Amino acid sequence: MQTRLEEILEKGQEKVPYGKTADYIPELGRRDPNHLGICVFTKDGKKYQAGDSQIRFTIQSISKVINLAAALEQRGFDYVFSKVGMEPSGEAFNSLVELDLTSSYPFNPMINSGAIAIASFLQPIMDFEEMLDFSRRLCMDPEITLDEAVCRSEMSHASRNRAIAYLLESKGIIENDVEKSLQLYIKLCSLSVTAESLANLGLILACGGINPVTGERLLKEDVVRVIKTIMFTCGMYDGSGTSAVYVGLPAKSGVGGGILSLADKKMGIGIYGPSLDQKGNSIAGQEMLRLLSKELKLHLFA
Amino acid sequence: MQTRLEEILEKGQEKVPYGKTADYIPELGRRDPNHLGICVFTKDGKKYQAGDSQIRFTIQSISKVINLAAALEQRGFDYVFSKVGMEPSGEAFNSLVELDLTSSYPFNPMINSGAIAIASFLQPIMDFEEMLDFSRRLCMDPEITLDEAVCRSEMSHASRNRAIAYLLESKGIIENDVEKSLQLYIKLCSLSVTAESLANLGLILACGGINPVTGERLLKEDVVRVIKTIMFTCGMYDGSGTSAVYVGLPAKSGVGGGILSLADKKMGIGIYGPSLDQKGNSIAGQEMLRLLSKELKLHLFA
Amino acid sequence: MQTRLEEILEKGQEKVPYGKTADYIPELGRRDPNHLGICVFTKDGKKYQAGDSQIRFTIQSISKVINLAAALEQRGFDYVFSKVGMEPSGEAFNSLVELDLTSSYPFNPMINSGAIAIASFLQPIMDFEEMLDFSRRLCMDPEITLDEAVCRSEMSHASRNRAIAYLLESKGIIENDVEKSLQLYIKLCSLSVTAESLANLGLILACGGINPVTGERLLKEDVVRVIKTIMFTCGMYDGSGTSAVYVGLPAKSGVGGGILSLADKKMGIGIYGPSLDQKGNSIAGQEMLRLLSKELKLHLFA
Amino acid sequence: MQTRLEEILEKGQEKVPYGKTADYIPELGRRDPNHLGICVFTKDGKKYQAGDSQIRFTIQSISKVINLAAALEQRGFDYVFSKVGMEPSGEAFNSLVELDLTSSYPFNPMINSGAIAIASFLQPIMDFEEMLDFSRRLCMDPEITLDEAVCRSEMSHASRNRAIAYLLESKGIIENDVEKSLQLYIKLCSLSVTAESLANLGLILACGGINPVTGERLLKEDVVRVIKTIMFTCGMYDGSGTSAVYVGLPAKSGVGGGILSLADKKMGIGIYGPSLDQKGNSIAGQEMLRLLSKELKLHLFA
Repeated sequence: MQTRLEEILEKGQEKVPYGKTADYIPELGRRDPNHLGICVFTKDGKKYQAGDSQIRFTIQSISKVINLAAALEQRGFDYVFSKVGMEPSGEAFNSLVELDLTSSYPFNPMINSGAIAIASFLQPIMDFEEMLDFSRRLCMDPEITLDEAVCRSEMSHASRNRAIAYLLESKGIIENDVEKSLQLYIKLCSLSVTAESLANLGLILACGGINPVTGERLLKEDVVRVIKTIMFTCGMYDGSGTSAVYVGLPAKSGVGGGILSLADKKMGIGIYGPSLDQKGNSIAGQEMLRLLSKELKLHLFA
Repeated sequence: MQTRLEEILEKGQEKVPYGKTADYIPELGRRDPNHLGICVFTKDGKKYQAGDSQIRFTIQSISKVINLAAALEQRGFDYVFSKVGMEPSGEAFNSLVELDLTSSYPFNPMINSGAIAIASFLQPIMDFEEMLDFSRRLCMDPEITLDEAVCRSEMSHASRNRAIAYLLESKGIIENDVEKSLQLYIKLCSLSVTAESLANLGLILACGGINPVTGERLLKEDVVRVIKTIMFTCGMYDGSGTSAVYVGLPAKSGVGGGILSLADKKMGIGIYGPSLDQKGNSIAGQEMLRLLSKELKLHLFA
Repeated sequence: MQTRLEEILEKGQEKVPYGKTADYIPELGRRDPNHLGICVFTKDGKKYQAGDSQIRFTIQSISKVINLAAALEQRGFDYVFSKVGMEPSGEAFNSLVELDLTSSYPFNPMINSGAIAIASFLQPIMDFEEMLDFSRRLCMDPEITLDEAVCRSEMSHASRNRAIAYLLESKGIIENDVEKSLQLYIKLCSLSVTAESLANLGLILACGGINPVTGERLLKEDVVRVIKTIMFTCGMYDGSGTSAVYVGLPAKSGVGGGILSLADKKMGIGIYGPSLDQKGNSIAGQEMLRLLSKELKLHLFA
Repeated sequence: MQTRLEEILEKGQEKVPYGKTADYIPELGRRDPNHLGICVFTKDGKKYQAGDSQIRFTIQSISKVINLAAALEQRGFDYVFSKVGMEPSGEAFNSLVELDLTSSYPFNPMINSGAIAIASFLQPIMDFEEMLDFSRRLCMDPEITLDEAVCRSEMSHASRNRAIAYLLESKGIIENDVEKSLQLYIKLCSLSVTAESLANLGLILACGGINPVTGERLLKEDVVRVIKTIMFTCGMYDGSGTSAVYVGLPAKSGVGGGILSLADKKMGIGIYGPSLDQKGNSIAGQEMLRLLSKELKLHLFA
């Protein structure tokens, strides 16, 4: 397995030059595009790592998974899905159009509008410290902290997300303080994780919400099933359908370069590679995930 | 003429029950829908009034005309039209979709996005007091004041306009403080005028920018030509084309129930009737304007 | 299992009154909305049926699965996906907007535009008789025929699909005869099947392309994997994401009232219930599928 | 005046290199982009010409004016505007999106969807020969003929217009034979005119529908007023608002390079210049029209 991961890493590196780091936030654009790392954590407790799996980067959209988990745990299925749908949108992650035009509420929790809506009703019941603590436990990583530089950078380039948030308010989806909701959303995006943290989280999801090391249940089984399904249909922005066909695993990407994935009941997978394709997904990360899925026959319909 | 106006008023009143007052801002919804008034001010200095032409109401979108006038006077044609287009949009006044989807800048200065963009670059050079003074002079009405109740009501129901403003910021159209820009925009919408004030403003536009009473030039001739053209093609929201055919006069409506119109080189026309049609135009006001245009053969292509 | 199916049928019947038969084609509108049937065919060769599982109805959009299978077999993965995407669209099955606005080719093969595009390049290499024969073999049902009445009815109500087809021609997606392509598409939609035929097809997909009764390979393993994935993400129109969460099985619905589904490596499932919800999916059929998935723990992430 | 026209022509020629001939129909792409001509026909019977005012070219979208005139004369205002709106669309001339998304019928008669809708109900009452005869009389040009080469070229590149036509049928706007409607529409677009023919037509419109040479009334006064208004607000595709501001005259352009314009009650103007801007309007033609309007103070709000 270790050898396999290293081979996959090598093949992934060939893809790096075809992408580039996120440029809409200066702080993200400064990352080294050549970084690439992967971590696999299997149900039987073995952990394999290759490349830059210990480098910290911001979680970005992968926090939408934690966001959704907290919301489902705290407010329940019916409440959450009265505010946000569960349909793939066919549009870019930061689209306003489909929200205003064809829908009265955000298409799903994996796009910005959906995650901001969720942050808005989480914010009065879980403050940032609690969310940080929840994230650390889910990622089995007590060293997760807020990346202040990225957070500031995002705060000062948030006008599109702010537009989305006020549009949600105008539609009655956001009922709480918009600025506080947005702040919580952005702070959660600015948590610094590693490929290993993501593999840990992936394994907990693969195990139905139980930390396999400690045996502790962190998330309800139902909640985890919903999350994995939505990751599968909506997790890779407007490349989700393509990823489902080629890779066939629940996955969630972030513009920081991370990918959280998992093979159900088998393993958690964490990837870091900040060189992105045009849809905002790690270009080498996707390739590595595809190769891993293919070689280990992990595809859901393999 | 006086008799004619009274007959027209009577016919207009028949239309009142087919509309209703604006409901998206509580303070506007409380207006008496049966109010109806008209004022005509001719170039030779005669003024005719019928019905509730002295009742104060908020100018709302008609302030977009004053907004545009100030911008063209202060910043010039090239600057203004590098920020805002001059094409009818075919969409509702508060649409975000066409802004995000098909255009990099607002379609025209008569829709919310365009007027907010204009307010954003006006705000550092003309504060509210100066804009108020400018409005009073253009309307020959020193009693125009800020309707505090409406302004507060609008401020607390501004999320859609705020979404538009932040979307404009994300596209680089708004470069100044968004909240201040929005505040100026909303305050200008909350100025209280009468049908007479609007007739006065209409006459100044009809006279190419000169106050015919004092002989003072208030606006450049070029500026006035642009304003009248844009009022003709874009002034009645997504009913502008229909109004151009049926009425054939430059006109600008507001959801407060006002209509500013004019027959070029002949007269200014001001109307108040807060019962609105589905597009946000005074339902009886449009009928009165159509009748006036027909009877006096004022249509541009009569 | 037989008892379970009958209980599920009973619970499904309670949902019938909340939907209605398709009304955009007169011939479909005339179906009895109270019909409801289900058939399950397991890998070990057992077949269970309840209700109207032998009534013939037109396959409608479920033919898109057969269409895609033929295309992938005949032209290969690369060619097919140079003409059609594999992303959920977030829009109704017969939408033109997303095709014209946001995409140069159809979002996926499960919506009308995608299936018409596929029919256009299938048509020169497989005529209707060959497609009929292919369908009969995949459904293990030699009695499948063309429902002439439905076909005529659809042909004379095809203007929206014809608009889609010519739009595809204008974009260079359709290069062959448009009318012939459309005719093939509509004929395939007009094949008469039963819930049992669909269960048979489902089982072949569940078995990776092999007819488990005869041992004959009908479809390549790769082709079947792609089909199942796309059914999972895109098969239930703009309710696909919701179905993925609630049911968690690859499924494809048709406005004739059919649902084709399967539990991978376990069983094929066929359903008939012509009372549809607003998205065009069998309202009672979905409920039955959800109950079956829940009781037998078939959800992909169960 | 003659000198002035020649100077204007010279200034217009400087703009030619910034555009290019229409490329979506091969036959149009073969026109000489350097051709440029203008003709002015004044109410007092004087005719001035400069440049290539006698070269024949296809009328293209300018036929929409004749189309609308015939429809209003034959079927009346109420019928026509129950099928087509009178609002500028803010979108390109061949857009389907706004038709499908925001509107149940075409925005106005000056875009393809509107003109095809009109052709569909004209076709049973006026055949092509009658429309040709009507066109010849309105243009005072008995030599107008069908350009067979262009017509064939358009017929074989009509898929987008055909898509629009079938979409109109699906919405119940087109009730007659779609192919015949489309054929009439395309034939009318393929009539060969000169800048002089257009100036003649312009003068008849400027004179309220009367041929000033013969004194014969060709169009009702009401019909002409509607046409001029719609030309003003919608005649220059999605550059109509800009043309209204800069030029200020009713005008209708065609991708063949023609512009029909007029100064109400004064003169008809015809222009030919096949080098087009990105919106499909003659680039040098618009410049000449702007200069003419400016120098003769023809702007509606001059």
